[in-house]
Amino acid sequence: MRLSRYFLPILKETPREAEIVSHRLMLRAGMIRQQGQGSFSWLPLGKRVLDKVCRIVREEQDRAGALEILMPTIQSAELWRESGRYDDYGKEMLRIKDRQDRDMLFGPTNEEMVTEIFRSYVKSYKDLPLNLYHIQWKYRDEVRPRFGVMRSREFLMKDAYSFDLDYASARAAYNRMFVSYLRTFTRLGLQAIPMRADTGPIGGDLSHEFIILADTGESQVFCQRDFLSLPVPGEDTDFSDDAEIGRIVKEWTTPYAATDEMHDEAAWERIPEAERLSARGIEVGHIFHFGEKYSKPMGAKVAGPDGKDHFVSMGSYGIGPSRLIAAIIEASHDENGIIWPESVAPFDVALINMKAGDADCDSACDGLYAALTAAGRDVLYDDTDQRPGGKFATADLVGLPWQVIVGPRGAASGEAEIKNRATGERSTVPLAEVAARLSGKPA
Amino acid sequence: MRLSRYFLPILKETPREAEIVSHRLMLRAGMIRQQGQGSFSWLPLGKRVLDKVCRIVREEQDRAGALEILMPTIQSAELWRESGRYDDYGKEMLRIKDRQDRDMLFGPTNEEMVTEIFRSYVKSYKDLPLNLYHIQWKYRDEVRPRFGVMRSREFLMKDAYSFDLDYASARAAYNRMFVSYLRTFTRLGLQAIPMRADTGPIGGDLSHEFIILADTGESQVFCQRDFLSLPVPGEDTDFSDDAEIGRIVKEWTTPYAATDEMHDEAAWERIPEAERLSARGIEVGHIFHFGEKYSKPMGAKVAGPDGKDHFVSMGSYGIGPSRLIAAIIEASHDENGIIWPESVAPFDVALINMKAGDADCDSACDGLYAALTAAGRDVLYDDTDQRPGGKFATADLVGLPWQVIVGPRGAASGEAEIKNRATGERSTVPLAEVAARLSGKPA
Repeated sequence: MRLSRYFLPILKETPREAEIVSHRLMLRAGMIRQQGQGSFSWLPLGKRVLDKVCRIVREEQDRAGALEILMPTIQSAELWRESGRYDDYGKEMLRIKDRQDRDMLFGPTNEEMVTEIFRSYVKSYKDLPLNLYHIQWKYRDEVRPRFGVMRSREFLMKDAYSFDLDYASARAAYNRMFVSYLRTFTRLGLQAIPMRADTGPIGGDLSHEFIILADTGESQVFCQRDFLSLPVPGEDTDFSDDAEIGRIVKEWTTPYAATDEMHDEAAWERIPEAERLSARGIEVGHIFHFGEKYSKPMGAKVAGPDGKDHFVSMGSYGIGPSRLIAAIIEASHDENGIIWPESVAPFDVALINMKAGDADCDSACDGLYAALTAAGRDVLYDDTDQRPGGKFATADLVGLPWQVIVGPRGAASGEAEIKNRATGERSTVPLAEVAARLSGKPA
Repeated sequence: MRLSRYFLPILKETPREAEIVSHRLMLRAGMIRQQGQGSFSWLPLGKRVLDKVCRIVREEQDRAGALEILMPTIQSAELWRESGRYDDYGKEMLRIKDRQDRDMLFGPTNEEMVTEIFRSYVKSYKDLPLNLYHIQWKYRDEVRPRFGVMRSREFLMKDAYSFDLDYASARAAYNRMFVSYLRTFTRLGLQAIPMRADTGPIGGDLSHEFIILADTGESQVFCQRDFLSLPVPGEDTDFSDDAEIGRIVKEWTTPYAATDEMHDEAAWERIPEAERLSARGIEVGHIFHFGEKYSKPMGAKVAGPDGKDHFVSMGSYGIGPSRLIAAIIEASHDENGIIWPESVAPFDVALINMKAGDADCDSACDGLYAALTAAGRDVLYDDTDQRPGGKFATADLVGLPWQVIVGPRGAASGEAEIKNRATGERSTVPLAEVAARLSGKPA
């Protein structure tokens, strides 16, 4: 993409309303624009990151056997009356009346609707296990939305829902999502630690939050350092092997880890001090097992192998892709801007023409643009007439993993400078070798 | 995907509430589920089609130079008061109050919001032309939603918005979207005819609807048969060549074409009778040029080359991917079910194991599944213990382009039967050649 044809509204000044670094950087890098209290548009650069995050989330859901659907944002109040949550949910639920004065709501979550889908079609244990997920906009009318997309009112959520015949298989479904989440966060460049958690308005008796450590985190967390060196399950993980998946979950739930609310000071004291890690954390995922909480009042049951009807045992599993992007930035930035992990970077390479209009520079850059694109890299090509200093600042701010810099001297000697955004390392490379160097394969 | 692990709730009976064939077939094929009046969930099969349609729409928007963003569904009433549409829009707008009693709405369209984005950042004609689009859920509180996703209340819409310095460049932007739409519909397997149209609540002075012909169409349309043989612009179309794009638009707007509202009986009578085509039509896209209708009241202006401020000249361009899917089915089905165009089929191949559990059949099918998948085809593998008749009926109903059928006799002789869903043509092929035959390349 040529920057001259792109829409990248960089802000020179730091927006005053932004309290945390991710919010500041997302506004300054032209990723988002605030449209109202807790409401944001995703501008082209932000939209690209959102797509990449959703893609990874989706791939890992699919790998774990979940099936993608898409439920509407607006729900009927009737469904929520069936579960009893219409009255329970409180003011965070955005309640709406249509032109016929029917009660509706903008879904903050979808347990009721997906249970309705399930009970309409599934009648036998033979069709289990089933896990349906969707990635859809949710709304929570927060009293005080803040921190940009970290706590907005309208936000994107991946929510999965599992249906099983009994507790043992529901627990296996829970474990698959647990392991899927470990893989998801690792692929996003995050180190997430699962912690036992409160179940809140979703309900149930078993729940884990996935927390990443960041100084700006909203809550205090306590865990053993062991987590930092636990191996993350690989691509070849066999999600059909309940025992193996259970073993991984066991490994990841044995060291001590707790959020403030669930913290057990006595247990904490028993851990050797050098092993203790007390830090600020950001929640990036939350999974729940809640058994029959919805299936019973809503009549979601299947015939078991015993010929009798059983209410299905359910769980739900949430990741907020919009929130995740803020979390990634909180965990990966410096004083000059964002440092994207390769997997979610909006483009792979910032190609900087230091003197657009100069025939040699243009020709060298056009050649690099073509070669890098042909090598499968997404390139943001700064072909504008801005001055070099501004271009460097923009490249650092938007934080693409690689910068390829061409000035008149380099163009004349047939060389470009390659800069690694994360390490700051620079090297000078013949123009003809740049694409191979950045293709991920050895030159 | 193995059908035994998929969620494909086929309905045996025709749902009574469905008045048109696309609605009936989408319910029967387990693509959608109604969640309320004019509100639908997309089940796994439907979601796959929706993704494929969106992908084509997106590729053609990008090719024409539009940039993807994503605006929120909920909008502030303030913005709509600036344009004057908050009071004008009527009861189709879903009006909402938040917990602080602020007026909000579920966006039926985004002219105001995108104009606000534009005016916040763009100050000079040098940053034009600009075309921003998004694919987002919209809501129109229809008095009588019906025909399934053809006229639902919550629906997916791709809406693009162009900003230009003056009428001539705005007209060029309009033409690019016009040509982009021709390509989009053709890739979706549809023959769409552009017709001059009323501008309705969007406003403006120039507008075309893109109409496909189908017996079940909602409106009467009149056009010359010439349209059926006009060449559709190819992949190599140069969208930066205003003259060439203008020539294509001219070619596609010269023959007579009008919806009922815009029909000119006198002009119609002058066309030779053999050339006249009067039929039912379905609107699948709508484009508008409306100049300063929003930029003026909302103060969206840029400095021109003359140093003076100019209100930008705008247009908007809509395609409804959810509605499109119904239109595709209306245009392509038979008495047994849907016939998907290859480009949007949820899977490419239905692999039918006529006797699951039979060692030879299982082994032949497992081999075909692996070979077809390796050849890049998406396969829905019916490995269930249903009887062959039911499997054939399901395969015809869901309408994948190819069926590969393996029974005990074929498995023994090392052959499969290949059936083309559209033509009904069958051929017997050695197992080892099936993947090559269906890979799109010569065997």
